[in-house]
Parts: sequence; structure tokens; C-alpha cells
Amino acid sequence: MRQRLSVEAYTKGVLSGDTIILSRAITLIESKLKNDKLLAKAVLENILPYTGKAMRVGITGVPGVGKSTFIEAFGKHITSLKKKVAVLTVDPSSKKTGGSILADKTRMEELSRDPLAFIRPSASGLSLGGVARSTRETMLLCEAAGYEVIIIETVGVGQSETLVKGMSDFFLLLMLAGAGDELQGIKKGIMEMADAVAINKADGANKISAELAVTEYQNALHLFPKSDSDFITKVVTCSALEGTGIASLWELITEYQQSTIQNGYFEKNRQAQNLEWMHNYIRQLLEGLFYENTIVKKAIVMSEKSVKEGNELPVPAAELLLDLFMKNLLK
Amino acid sequence: MRQRLSVEAYTKGVLSGDTIILSRAITLIESKLKNDKLLAKAVLENILPYTGKAMRVGITGVPGVGKSTFIEAFGKHITSLKKKVAVLTVDPSSKKTGGSILADKTRMEELSRDPLAFIRPSASGLSLGGVARSTRETMLLCEAAGYEVIIIETVGVGQSETLVKGMSDFFLLLMLAGAGDELQGIKKGIMEMADAVAINKADGANKISAELAVTEYQNALHLFPKSDSDFITKVVTCSALEGTGIASLWELITEYQQSTIQNGYFEKNRQAQNLEWMHNYIRQLLEGLFYENTIVKKAIVMSEKSVKEGNELPVPAAELLLDLFMKNLLK
Repeated sequence: MRQRLSVEAYTKGVLSGDTIILSRAITLIESKLKNDKLLAKAVLENILPYTGKAMRVGITGVPGVGKSTFIEAFGKHITSLKKKVAVLTVDPSSKKTGGSILADKTRMEELSRDPLAFIRPSASGLSLGGVARSTRETMLLCEAAGYEVIIIETVGVGQSETLVKGMSDFFLLLMLAGAGDELQGIKKGIMEMADAVAINKADGANKISAELAVTEYQNALHLFPKSDSDFITKVVTCSALEGTGIASLWELITEYQQSTIQNGYFEKNRQAQNLEWMHNYIRQLLEGLFYENTIVKKAIVMSEKSVKEGNELPVPAAELLLDLFMKNLLK
Repeated sequence: MRQRLSVEAYTKGVLSGDTIILSRAITLIESKLKNDKLLAKAVLENILPYTGKAMRVGITGVPGVGKSTFIEAFGKHITSLKKKVAVLTVDPSSKKTGGSILADKTRMEELSRDPLAFIRPSASGLSLGGVARSTRETMLLCEAAGYEVIIIETVGVGQSETLVKGMSDFFLLLMLAGAGDELQGIKKGIMEMADAVAINKADGANKISAELAVTEYQNALHLFPKSDSDFITKVVTCSALEGTGIASLWELITEYQQSTIQNGYFEKNRQAQNLEWMHNYIRQLLEGLFYENTIVKKAIVMSEKSVKEGNELPVPAAELLLDLFMKNLLK
């Protein structure tokens, strides 16, 4: 591993927008080494006052929806407005999801060459919780480095959506026209999380079906309960290929930002996200202590089996495991 | 408080379907006294082999949707088929939700007089987690007492839906016709949880708008991702007043039961629910230990404030609190 810099060097480099030092600071944050963790903590504390100013946009959609091409076009539009944009990814690249995002920059070639854009793929070798944490912290580093828009990309098939929703100001769902079939891969509950749905690949022969899809989704979504933001979920079309709908989508997001800042939701949501992050992390730590405990690890195999099969009640099984844990901890 | 019976007396009474002893066993389960808890645990262990045979139907809907009248008509239909039905409630009667269910039997007068029906309102004075636990255990007691259908009722405004969904085989959402407006009170995410949506009060002048609502919801729901059960969410109309749609809704639930038993989802779902219950309870116990700790209780006030306002990072704040907790625990 490369040599570490000093806390001051990381801080100064990040704040000056130096992308090489920014990258190295992110690597530091992703590190599992104890010394790196202490160093990362100090850097994050230093940059904290310079964070929070970006618009954080979460983007999800199943593989095949054209996410990379969309983000490239969307990012290029943002940089054309002379705004700095960072693209981050929450992708625990689990084989199970089958939706792993290509972890290299080649898929957004043009955007990655743009000096106003910064692309950073998901950290590898971390759990979903670990990826979520490092992405949140990377987001703060990028904000401190002057990025005004942070795009956080994920795949709509696992549990990562809830995590990305929990760190975004605006959550965009990418879809394709075709009445439901393409949705087979998307997880239940994601539709209701979206602040906007964009029907992608609305070009050529697809245009008409995309317009029909807009009507369908608009009708469907007006049956949904309103969000706390008071913003009614919009459905739009776009084509990264033809470059249509991209600018108006960005305008929509800007409108959302303005209206939620005005009605106070923007700040309220950020505060709630911060608190939730703390409580979630407390839970992660507590559960880590518990489930990583050697005695618990041994005993839980049997408990899970008998509870699953209905031979043991969940509550006393849990109590027994907790007793074992506490005795082991206190001895 | 009334005198307790012996473990054997509770067990025998419940298994023989004695409703007076069943009621007393439920009271025992709801008790916070240590001795009662031990007694309850022994009773539950005894009856465990006789549980699991009922169809567990969760029902939700905002206040005003006509839940009580519906459940009365639905319950009467089930007893008319010579099946025993139990009606339980998950309602943490929090003032915040504003949707507290009347905690007495007068709202289902006819059903409560039916010898094949058993109605038990939510335990009072418990947290939402506590209510969920006692309802799950009450469900097991009712199954052991021979009830073939368990209806678990809740209000569609809070967090109780997820808990009820987590203990149901089939989740029914009651709605009214009127294109979205009545939904203002319902929480996001509930629509996607439903196995069926019933447009209630489809009688008299409402009939036409109810039929229109069916089409609307059907169109909306076919855009949703499919459930793991492979069962496509149905939208139906019903009227408790005119007695229409009740029988066919029960048939729908029976069909669901048969098809999910056949494709293996029924058992898989039950097993997953059991496991989830254990892990959720472990989390409850761990968080209980943590958040009830005197040192944590004091320190967390400041942490929450500074994290919320963005002056402190969630992760180090959580780590600090956990350090305090562990030191306090181990000293």
C-alpha cells in the first residue's frame, strides 16, 4: 500500500479540490486498517464544516435500463452548466444480486475525461453496511472538494436502495417502457420511494410506448400516498442517445431542491438522515458485537434451524442467545 | 390481579378450546411480571406443537374505511362456513397516529356473540414491539385453541403494518373509491405490501366509482414488481352493508393459500417470518440494553443534537456512545 499523507495534507488537498488527494483520502476511508481508520476520522472531522452543500441525487434501476449511459449524459449536462459533479456507487457486488455494476470508468468514458467530473466506483471487499458507510463518507469528502452535485448510483434489485435513499436529497428511478415486464427484477417498495420516475430509452420506435408508459405511471403514482416532501412524484421520458429529457430532468431536480428548501423539508430530511445514520450505525455495532461473538456464532446455528422449522419459539431462542452473549461478555 | 392457574391447567384449557382460559392465558402473555413471563413461556412451549395450522390474514386500512364493519361481515362469513375465527389487533394506541382502534367488542357486536368467533383487542400499556410480540403469541394460543382463521387488524398509518405483514400469510388492504384522496393518511410502502386490495363501501351510489377504482388500482398494481409468492395482487370490491364481495374475497384468500402451499411459498414465508422474528427480537433486546443504559441515556441527548445539526459525524458519535456503554457494562 502507498504511504499515507498527514491529516493536514489530506485536509488541504481535499479542500483545494485536488482529485489525486481526494482519491487517496477515499482509499483511506475504505481501509480496514486501524491506523487508517484513526487518520480517516481526523480528516473527516476537519472537512465536516465544508460539507452538506451539494445536491445529492440517488439513481436506481435494474440492469439493462441504461443507467451508465444515462448518468454519462446527465453528468455531462451538469458539467455543461459549469457545475462540478461526482458519481459514486453503492454496489456490494454480491454475486447473489446478479446486478453488479461494472466497477471501472470505461463505462462512462466521456464523463470520466471531463475535468469537472469525478467518478469513483464502489469500494470492494466490504459488506453492504460497509459500502454504505464509505459511500456516505466519500460523499462528504467530495462536497468538501467542491462538488456541487453528487450522484449516488445503485441497482434496483437488492437492499442497497434503502441505503441510497437514506443518503439522497432526491431519488430517481429509471425505467423502460413496456408495461411491467421489465420490472420483474426490481424490488417491491422502490416505486414508492422515488421522487421521480424517468422512462429511459425514449427514442426512435420506443418514443410512443414511452409516452404511454408516462401516462400509466402517472396514473398509478397518483394513487400513492404523498411524500412528506409535499412534492408529487413526476414521471418523465428521456433518451441518453438523443439527449432529450436530460435538461428538463435536471430542472425538475432543481425545482425540487428549491421547493423543499422553501418548505423546510430539505433540512428536516437531512437532519433525520443524520440521526438515522447514527442509530443505524449503533445497531450495526451492537449486532456486530453479538453476531461476531464466538459463543453466539456456535449456538445460533442450532437456534436458527429449530426456530425456522417451528420447533422452538423465536422469543425464548433470542433470550437464550442473549444470555449466552452477556455471560461471555462479562466473564 | 386474578390468581394464576398451573401450566398444565392453561395448556389443557387452551387446547380444549376453552375461551375463558384462552383469555386468561393471553392476559398472562401480556403481563410484565417476571413470574408471569416464566409461566407464559412454559405454556407457549407446551402448545407450540399444536400451532401453525390457521390461515393468518392481516387487514389494514385508514380510519374511516369501514374496517370494523368489514371484519364483522368477513368473520360472520367464515363462521357460516363452520370455521372458527379469531380477531386480534395490533394497535399501540399511540396518540401520535390518531388512528387508534376502539379497544372494545361493541364495534363488532354480532361477531362477538358468535360462539365460533373470538375477539381480543390489543394489549394496552405496551410499546409497539411489545404489542407485536404479544399479538404473535396470542395468535399461537388461538391456533392451539383450534381457531382456523386468524384475522390481525391494524391501522394503515404507522409502523404497525410491517409488523402485521410479518406475521400474516395474506395481507389485505382496505380502501375507498375516490382516486387517491382517501390515501393521504396511509403510509408509503403499504400498497406494495398488499396481496389484495378491497375497495370497501361499494354500495348504493358508490358502486360505479368503486368499479372505476378497481380498474385504476388494477392498472396501477400491474406496474408493480411481482411478489415472491408469484400471486398477482388482486383488486376487488366489497360492501359489508350489502354483504357483497365478502364470500369471493374469502375464496380469493383460499386460492392464495392453496397456490402458495403448492409452490412452496407458504412454508418458505412462514420459516422466514420465524427467523426474522428471532433476529428482530435479538435486536430489540440489544437496543433495549443500550438505550436503557443510564450512561447512554444521558450522553445520547447531546450526541443526537450535534449529529442532527451536522456538527458531529454520525459514525464517531455512535462509536463514542458504544464505548461508554461497553465500559459501563464491563465495570
